[in-house]
Amino acid sequence: MQIAFIGLGNMGAPMAANLLAAGHALRVCDLSEAAIDAACAQGATRAANPADAASDAELVMTMLPAAAHVRAVYQGEHGVLASVPAGIPLIDSSTIDPATVAALADAAARQGNPFVDAPVSGGTVGAQAGTLTFMVGADPALLERIAPVLAQMGRNVVRCGDTGTGQVAKLCNNLLLGISMIGVAEAMSLGEALGIDAQVLAGIINTSTGRCWSAEVCNPVPGIVANAPASRAYRGGFGVDLMLKDLGLAVDAARAARLALPLGALAEQTYRRSSRHGDGSLDFSSVIRQYGDAG
Amino acid sequence: MQIAFIGLGNMGAPMAANLLAAGHALRVCDLSEAAIDAACAQGATRAANPADAASDAELVMTMLPAAAHVRAVYQGEHGVLASVPAGIPLIDSSTIDPATVAALADAAARQGNPFVDAPVSGGTVGAQAGTLTFMVGADPALLERIAPVLAQMGRNVVRCGDTGTGQVAKLCNNLLLGISMIGVAEAMSLGEALGIDAQVLAGIINTSTGRCWSAEVCNPVPGIVANAPASRAYRGGFGVDLMLKDLGLAVDAARAARLALPLGALAEQTYRRSSRHGDGSLDFSSVIRQYGDAG
Amino acid sequence: MQIAFIGLGNMGAPMAANLLAAGHALRVCDLSEAAIDAACAQGATRAANPADAASDAELVMTMLPAAAHVRAVYQGEHGVLASVPAGIPLIDSSTIDPATVAALADAAARQGNPFVDAPVSGGTVGAQAGTLTFMVGADPALLERIAPVLAQMGRNVVRCGDTGTGQVAKLCNNLLLGISMIGVAEAMSLGEALGIDAQVLAGIINTSTGRCWSAEVCNPVPGIVANAPASRAYRGGFGVDLMLKDLGLAVDAARAARLALPLGALAEQTYRRSSRHGDGSLDFSSVIRQYGDAG
Amino acid sequence: MQIAFIGLGNMGAPMAANLLAAGHALRVCDLSEAAIDAACAQGATRAANPADAASDAELVMTMLPAAAHVRAVYQGEHGVLASVPAGIPLIDSSTIDPATVAALADAAARQGNPFVDAPVSGGTVGAQAGTLTFMVGADPALLERIAPVLAQMGRNVVRCGDTGTGQVAKLCNNLLLGISMIGVAEAMSLGEALGIDAQVLAGIINTSTGRCWSAEVCNPVPGIVANAPASRAYRGGFGVDLMLKDLGLAVDAARAARLALPLGALAEQTYRRSSRHGDGSLDFSSVIRQYGDAG
Repeated sequence: MQIAFIGLGNMGAPMAANLLAAGHALRVCDLSEAAIDAACAQGATRAANPADAASDAELVMTMLPAAAHVRAVYQGEHGVLASVPAGIPLIDSSTIDPATVAALADAAARQGNPFVDAPVSGGTVGAQAGTLTFMVGADPALLERIAPVLAQMGRNVVRCGDTGTGQVAKLCNNLLLGISMIGVAEAMSLGEALGIDAQVLAGIINTSTGRCWSAEVCNPVPGIVANAPASRAYRGGFGVDLMLKDLGLAVDAARAARLALPLGALAEQTYRRSSRHGDGSLDFSSVIRQYGDAG
Repeated sequence: MQIAFIGLGNMGAPMAANLLAAGHALRVCDLSEAAIDAACAQGATRAANPADAASDAELVMTMLPAAAHVRAVYQGEHGVLASVPAGIPLIDSSTIDPATVAALADAAARQGNPFVDAPVSGGTVGAQAGTLTFMVGADPALLERIAPVLAQMGRNVVRCGDTGTGQVAKLCNNLLLGISMIGVAEAMSLGEALGIDAQVLAGIINTSTGRCWSAEVCNPVPGIVANAPASRAYRGGFGVDLMLKDLGLAVDAARAARLALPLGALAEQTYRRSSRHGDGSLDFSSVIRQYGDAG
Repeated sequence: MQIAFIGLGNMGAPMAANLLAAGHALRVCDLSEAAIDAACAQGATRAANPADAASDAELVMTMLPAAAHVRAVYQGEHGVLASVPAGIPLIDSSTIDPATVAALADAAARQGNPFVDAPVSGGTVGAQAGTLTFMVGADPALLERIAPVLAQMGRNVVRCGDTGTGQVAKLCNNLLLGISMIGVAEAMSLGEALGIDAQVLAGIINTSTGRCWSAEVCNPVPGIVANAPASRAYRGGFGVDLMLKDLGLAVDAARAARLALPLGALAEQTYRRSSRHGDGSLDFSSVIRQYGDAG
Repeated sequence: MQIAFIGLGNMGAPMAANLLAAGHALRVCDLSEAAIDAACAQGATRAANPADAASDAELVMTMLPAAAHVRAVYQGEHGVLASVPAGIPLIDSSTIDPATVAALADAAARQGNPFVDAPVSGGTVGAQAGTLTFMVGADPALLERIAPVLAQMGRNVVRCGDTGTGQVAKLCNNLLLGISMIGVAEAMSLGEALGIDAQVLAGIINTSTGRCWSAEVCNPVPGIVANAPASRAYRGGFGVDLMLKDLGLAVDAARAARLALPLGALAEQTYRRSSRHGDGSLDFSSVIRQYGDAG
C-alpha cells in the first residue's frame, strides 16, 4: 500500500520501519533531515512536505508531538488536506485534545476524507517491537479497513467508538494512571516510614484491593520489580514530561466539559514539581522521589 | 483451645461463630448483652469482663471499633492484662494506629505476653464465609503457633513482619485503595462527559496501564460490574465512613512520621464530603456521585 | 482625541460612555448591533470592522472576553493591524494570557505600534462609575502619554512594568484572591461547625493575622458585611465563572513557566464545582455553599 | 494576687515575668529546673508540683506545649484539680483542641472551678513585650474578673464567647493564615516566573483584592518587607512546626465536626513537606522555598 507517513520521532521512526518491513511503500516527511535520511535508508521515499507525501497516498499516517503540529501538518500551507485524494483515510496517532480531533475530522469530512484518532500506548519499546496498543476512534467499517495496517505496528487494536473516542480513552486511562502512581508512591513511602519491608508491602498490595499496574508492573521503589524503570534509575519508561502533557490534556478537557477533577489537577501539579526539579525525562514513577528526605 | 473473644460486632460475631464451629471453647465479652446472648446460643460462655474472659485463656482474640476500645479492653480496669497468664498470645484484629499497637505490645511484653496485630480485609461477607485475609505482625515462630486458629476464620494469613506491621500493611493498602477509587471516579466521569461509552472505557482501562481493583472489581459506575456495590445502589461493600477511618489513621501515621501525603489528605477530605452529604454508609465507590451534576 | 473602541460588552460599553462624556470622538465596533446602536446614541460613530475603526485613530482601545477575540480583532482579516497608522498606541484592557500579549506586542512592534496591556479591576460597577484600577504594562514614556485617557475611565493607573506585566499583576492578584476566599470559607465554616458566633469570628480575623479583603470586605457569610454580595444572595460582585477564567489563565501561565501551583490548581477545581452546580453567575464568595450540609 | 503559674517555656517564662513585674506573687512549676530557677531569681516561689502550686492560689495560669500536657497538669496525679480551692479561675493559654477544653471545663465545673481557654497570638516577641492578644472563652462576668491580669501580659483581650470559643477562634484564624501564606507564596512565585518585579507586585496586591497580612506584613519574598522574617533568612516569627501543629488541630476539629476542608488539609501537607526538608524552625513564610528551583 502507498502510505504517507509524517512524523519520524522516537515513536514515528520505528512505526514507519515496521510498515516498511511489512512491505508497504512509504513517502515520509519530518522536520529533521537526519530522520528522513534514516527512513530512506530503510526504503522510504522523501516527500517535500505533507501535501507532497499525501498526493498519491492510499493511507495517511501521522505521529506528532502536539496538537499544533497536527493542525499544521493537516491544515497548514502544503498540508495533507491540500492534496490528499478524497476517500483516503487519515490516521493520527499523536496524543492530542479531543477538540482538535473534532475540528480536523470536520475539515477532513468536508472534502471526503475520514479522520481517525488512533493514539497508542506502549512507548518506544512497543513501537520498536511492534507491540503497541492502538485506541481507535472510527466507525466499524473503517476500522476493518485500516486494522490490518495498524496490526503491523501493534499487537492490540481497540475500537473505542466513533472519531474522537480514541483520544478520550487514552486521556482517561492516563489520568487514572497518573493518580494511581502517586497513590502507590504515597503508600510505599508511608510503609517505608513506618518500618514495613517494601517487598513484603508490595506483595500484600498486589494481592489486595490496592493492586494496580503502578504497584505490580511499574512499582516506583527501586528493586521491587526487576525490569521496572525504578530498578534502573528511572531510565526508559514513560517520562514525567509525557505524563504532564497527558494530564494537562485531561484537565483541559475537563475544563471544557465543566467538570471538576481535584485529584487529577493535584496530580498534574505534583508531576510538574518533579519536572521543575530536573526529573522531566525520568520515568513518571520517579515522582516517589518527592517523598524522600531530599525530595 | 480455650479462647477469650472480646468484641462481638458485625465482624467479631461471625468470626467467633467460626471458631465455635471449629470446636474451640470461647469465653466472650461485649458491651451488648444481645450480642453475648447470641454467641452463647452458639455455645460460647459469658465472661463478666475482659479480665474474666482472659483469666484461663490459651489465646486472646479482640475485634473492636477503634484504638480507644482496644486500650480499654487490654489496659483498663478489669482489662485483659490484669489477668491473662504469661505466655498467652494476644491477637488484636481491630484496625488501629501503629502507635497504639506499639504501646500495647510493650505493656504486654513486660508481663510476658506476645501481642499480635492481625487486621483483616474481606468485610462482613468474608467474616461470615471464613474467607478473610489476615495481615499479621508477629515473629515467624509465633505466627506458626497462631496461624491454624486464624485459618479457621480466614483464607489467607499473610505475615507482614514483626509486631505492628500488620496495621502498617492495612493502612498503606487502604490509603492506595482510597486514592485509586477517586482516580477511577475522575477517569470514568471524564469519559462520560466526553462521550465515550462507559463499558468500553472500563474495558480499555482494565487491559491498560490504568487497571486496578477499583476499576475492575468495584467499578463505581452502575452497571459496569454486575455484582459490584455500584450496581446495587452502593449498598453493601466497604462503607465511606470505614474508608474515612482508615484514611484518617494513614494521614495521622504520616503526621507522626513527618511525611507529607498530599493526595492521601485530599482523598480523605473528598470522602468526608460524601459522608457529610449523607453517603457515609454507602460503599466508598459512591464517591463518584460527587462528579455528577448534583454531586 | 480620535479613539477606536472595540468591544462594547458589560465592561466596554460603560468605559466607552465615559470616554464619550470626556469629549473624545469614538469609532466603535462590536458583534452586537444593539451595543453599537447604544454607543452611537451616546455620540459614537459606527465602524464596519476593527480595521475601519482603527484607520484614522489616534488611540485604539479594546475590551474583549478572551484571547481568541483579541487575536482576531488585531490580527484577523479586517483587523486593527491591517489599517492602524504607525506610532498609534494599542491598549488592550481584556484579561488574557501573557503569551498572547507577547505575540501581539511583537506583531504590533514590527509595524511601529506600541502595544499596552491594561487589564482592570473594579467590575461593572467600577466601569460605570469610572473608578476602575488599570494595571498597565508599558514603558514610562508611553504610560505618561496614555494615562490621561485611562484616568477618564478609572481612578487608579498603576504601572506594573513593561508590556505584559499588567496581565501578570492581574493574574497573580486574582490567583491569591481565589485562594484567600476559599481560605475564608473554610475558616468561617469551621467556626460555625464548632459553635463560635460568625460575627465575632469575623471581627477577630479582621484584627488578626488572618485578615484579608475576602474576610473584611467580601465576607462569604451572609449578614457579616452589609453591602457584600453574600448579604444579597451572592448577586452582583465578581462571578464564579470570571474567577474560573482568571484561575485558568494563572494555572496555564504557571504550566508554561514550569511552576507547580498545587493550591491554585485545587482552588480552580473548587470554583469549577460551584459552577457545575449552577452557581457560575453568583459572586465567587458563594463558594462557601460547598461547605454547607447540601453544598 | 497569689497566682499558680505552670509552664515556663519560651512563651510562659516571659509571661510569668510580666506578672511578677506587675506585683503578683507567683508559685511556679515546670519540668525544667533551670526554668524554675530563672523565675525564682525574678521573685517567684518554687512549687513541688501543680497541686502544690494551686493549693493556695487565687488564680491558676497554664501555658503548655500540647493537650496531653494540659490534661496531665490539671487531671494527673498531683494535678491542679486535686488541690485548687473551689471558685478559683483556671486559665489555660496553651493552644489545644476544643474537645480537650470541653472535657477539662466539665471536670473543673464539677468541683466548682471555672475553666477559661485563652490562647494567644503574638509569639515570643509579644510575650516579652507584654503585647499578646488573648482570645478568651469565658462568660462576661468571669472575663471582667480576669481581664486585668491578662492585660498585664497582653495588649488585647478579646472575648470570643463562652468556654471553648477562644481555641476555636485561634484555630480558625490560623487555618486561614496558613492557607493565605501559601496563596501569597504561589502568587509571588508566579509573578517572579513571569517577570514582574516583586516589589511592584507586592505593592499592587497590597492595594487590591489580594491584600492580606501575609502579603503586607509578612511577605515571604526576602527584601519586600524590611522587618519581616523573610528579610532575615526566615529567622524568628511563627515557625513552620507551630503552624503545622495548629493546622493539625484545625483539620482534626473539622474531622470531629464531619466537615471537609480540602485546602486546609493540603496546606497542612505543604507545611509538612517544608518541615521534612529541615525548615521546621524557620518562619512559616519559608514555605515559598518550595516554589524555587531547588524547593
